[in-house]
Amino acid sequence: MLASVLRSARYRSGAKSSRHCFAIIHDYSTPARNPALACWNSDDKSYFQQLLKPENVLTDIEDTKPFTVDWLVKYKAQSNHQMVLKPKTTAQVSAILNYCNQRNLSVVPQGGNTGLVGGSVPVYDEIVLSMSSMNNVISFDEVSGVLVCEAGCILENLDSYVAKHGYMMPLDLGAKGTCQIGGNVATNAGGLRLLRYGSLHGTVLGIEAVLADGTVIDCLSTMRKDNTGYDLKQLFIGSEGTLGVVTKVSILTPPRSSSKNVALLACEDFAACQKAFVEAKKNLGEVLSAVEFMDRQSLDIVFSQQDWTKDPLETISPFYVLIETSGSNSHHDMEKLEAFLEDVMGSGVVVDGTVAQDASQAQKLFMLREDISLSLSSRGFVYKYDISLPLDQYYKIVEEVRDIVTPLGAEVVGFGHMGDCNLHLNVSTREYDEKVFNALEPFVFEWTSKYRGSISSEHGIGTHKPPFLHLSKSDDSIRLMRQVKQLMDPKGILNPYKVLPNEI
Amino acid sequence: MLASVLRSARYRSGAKSSRHCFAIIHDYSTPARNPALACWNSDDKSYFQQLLKPENVLTDIEDTKPFTVDWLVKYKAQSNHQMVLKPKTTAQVSAILNYCNQRNLSVVPQGGNTGLVGGSVPVYDEIVLSMSSMNNVISFDEVSGVLVCEAGCILENLDSYVAKHGYMMPLDLGAKGTCQIGGNVATNAGGLRLLRYGSLHGTVLGIEAVLADGTVIDCLSTMRKDNTGYDLKQLFIGSEGTLGVVTKVSILTPPRSSSKNVALLACEDFAACQKAFVEAKKNLGEVLSAVEFMDRQSLDIVFSQQDWTKDPLETISPFYVLIETSGSNSHHDMEKLEAFLEDVMGSGVVVDGTVAQDASQAQKLFMLREDISLSLSSRGFVYKYDISLPLDQYYKIVEEVRDIVTPLGAEVVGFGHMGDCNLHLNVSTREYDEKVFNALEPFVFEWTSKYRGSISSEHGIGTHKPPFLHLSKSDDSIRLMRQVKQLMDPKGILNPYKVLPNEI
Repeated sequence: MLASVLRSARYRSGAKSSRHCFAIIHDYSTPARNPALACWNSDDKSYFQQLLKPENVLTDIEDTKPFTVDWLVKYKAQSNHQMVLKPKTTAQVSAILNYCNQRNLSVVPQGGNTGLVGGSVPVYDEIVLSMSSMNNVISFDEVSGVLVCEAGCILENLDSYVAKHGYMMPLDLGAKGTCQIGGNVATNAGGLRLLRYGSLHGTVLGIEAVLADGTVIDCLSTMRKDNTGYDLKQLFIGSEGTLGVVTKVSILTPPRSSSKNVALLACEDFAACQKAFVEAKKNLGEVLSAVEFMDRQSLDIVFSQQDWTKDPLETISPFYVLIETSGSNSHHDMEKLEAFLEDVMGSGVVVDGTVAQDASQAQKLFMLREDISLSLSSRGFVYKYDISLPLDQYYKIVEEVRDIVTPLGAEVVGFGHMGDCNLHLNVSTREYDEKVFNALEPFVFEWTSKYRGSISSEHGIGTHKPPFLHLSKSDDSIRLMRQVKQLMDPKGILNPYKVLPNEI
Repeated sequence: MLASVLRSARYRSGAKSSRHCFAIIHDYSTPARNPALACWNSDDKSYFQQLLKPENVLTDIEDTKPFTVDWLVKYKAQSNHQMVLKPKTTAQVSAILNYCNQRNLSVVPQGGNTGLVGGSVPVYDEIVLSMSSMNNVISFDEVSGVLVCEAGCILENLDSYVAKHGYMMPLDLGAKGTCQIGGNVATNAGGLRLLRYGSLHGTVLGIEAVLADGTVIDCLSTMRKDNTGYDLKQLFIGSEGTLGVVTKVSILTPPRSSSKNVALLACEDFAACQKAFVEAKKNLGEVLSAVEFMDRQSLDIVFSQQDWTKDPLETISPFYVLIETSGSNSHHDMEKLEAFLEDVMGSGVVVDGTVAQDASQAQKLFMLREDISLSLSSRGFVYKYDISLPLDQYYKIVEEVRDIVTPLGAEVVGFGHMGDCNLHLNVSTREYDEKVFNALEPFVFEWTSKYRGSISSEHGIGTHKPPFLHLSKSDDSIRLMRQVKQLMDPKGILNPYKVLPNEI
């Protein structure tokens, strides 16, 4: 618990501690401020103060600052005219949106503000709707494992809550100590447990959301099966707050595993990593819970930036696979793991490896993977790409990008949720460098598109990627998305300038 | 394999063998034929014959008959003016819909026609778009387990196909030998494996669908993570062919379990069944793959109608729970199962039980559960209700309904996917009886609504339940559904009279 609290603290303080404060300097795509959207005035402020009590309406720049910039200080509102509202009930959210819709005031729904694509901060003077004060658990059913809670509940708190009853949240992220379940749902957060428990499109059973005009859509079912009409809740999952504000969530939590094992394996080439993955599925079957990938460059960054005194393995290898098992019987799990290791080490697929001997060692091995992102940030500037690719192309892009930007002084690392075909391609420089940026974009997105990958695997589109959406979605699909947006938010007040590209 | 082929044959011949042929006699809700929809004529027929070749355009009543009535012969087209089209490519589906949309001709997309709510047959003279000829596997990735195929592939064939590579389909239904993956997706089919592998909203990775105007929406991703804009494919899952025609599907298949165990357990009361479920989750953890429920009355119906010579248990009990485990190590699985049985039998939660000793016994025990539906059908008329309820209410409705309709000569059985809170409440009479029907509806739906259950757990809405949709969904939700329908199918040509209620 301590480690993740510490990590959370780092997320929280990111805005202050970063050495690289700049506002969307490479965001060549941000549209001009939409003149049809109004600017809030003192009458609006009075209305909200009456509705929410004055202490829940922030307008002083010092108070609003943490809400108008992301934790990596990459995306920052381009205006000092800011307002943050902190509703406590769905009725208040509804009243706020109804009022804003009438007044043409735009709104940015915000959870823990841990996103990486600028989706949760204002671009100009949009009003921030912070969900932090809606943080109550509504119910938990110990038989079915269904949790119902408000959107502002912090993911780690929910995990601790259901842990008392022998359950766990079906998702886990590095930002768990700060991110909120409403934000997780709105961005369709992926993370470490997706391989085993699937995406939020499957585990979220119900949603209460408020539409742009204040209409409350109550789809807060607690039933695993509910085929009654169109599954409207799916529209809100992953739409990044542009179609409605998620106010409550009902989610299926799986039984908490009593046994957990972690093994770090070294491979000579990426083809061997793929073989290790296939063998893990065969040998570990139902207890396999994570298959993470790191290249040697990723590990070197961690060793150079964090408190790691020594490499957990004796030999240095170019590729590493981190395998996690979670099960209900430690004896069985260990037997399966041993059979798997015998298989992959006997056949030479894996050339070196270590298995954590206790929970503390397991956590330490896993932190090696989790610390890559933080180590990169503390080293300097990071160009982050979160893509999905077929596994036979998964590492090729890392090599190609390395060939291109190494001469420019950049370091390239590849890591990610290999079991989900999700690669985090990160490029590190001491300072932001336009030349490196121009070499990366649109190259990375176009390369990904060529192999029918996804240009945003789990981080979303936000303000970073609308101009590249067409590389993962067809024109007809984007047209339909626009029509859905127009239908549900005709005035465009919800999270403007995000997700959908400018119409040409 | 033999057993399921036999069952499939029974599904196929249902229309001919049923003793109870009547067309939607209790469908008090079917709207009048929409006069804005045209009736196909000889010019239209010529157009389609040219597009598809004459043999793929059926209009003779003998040829169209199997497509215009459901397998239980409950829902039958109320017109003899029928046409069935059998496209072979997405381009043909697109051309058909584009033409129909211009001509205001309505269309019923049809898979295996195994539905239970009249969703896949015409109400009047809608053109049937049979997907049966689009039945090719497009690709299968042995590393990721992702299958891409055309919509008309039969579920069991796909399961056999991926079995060769060590994988299995994430869903399994009684109708697997006849139902098609496109229909499964369009109706968000649930079935036996949902407890373990989740719903199609999570396992379907991509869809290609054709909109009412012929536009092809290509969201056929093979990536588990793809957060690029709104997840449009979700709109087609469970919308019963009213928003578009699913032409291709990409789906994640889990590794096939090498070990399977089945245990039949008897309980004295329903509270004990719930306890057995909770203990199963604790003890069996990750190998638990099904928790099915049957009351004694269900078993008695099977014994009276099928070739069962004797009860598998010595004592007669009022309630039964069928537990299935699937895992990768038979020794481990059996150890877990034994520990579970020791636990529940030692504590008196379970009063009698049997564990299948081999695959054939396991299949036989499972057939006890699967045969309930068929036994009811062969006994006479069945009023079928497929609902979700919180487990503390799950069996109360069976008892209440039994109290009401037993005096009318009806028999009431309760069974279902208890692990998913899904109850199949079935009422059996020798012949259709209006009095029984009036006692059941809207009582069952209103009772379900009172406890925030779902009036259609996995079977969908079809033509049966539109008037009751408001009992599971709010007015605002239904209004939004209507708007989505209007947006995607403005002329209302796709599967008219289904899912959404008449506007009042």
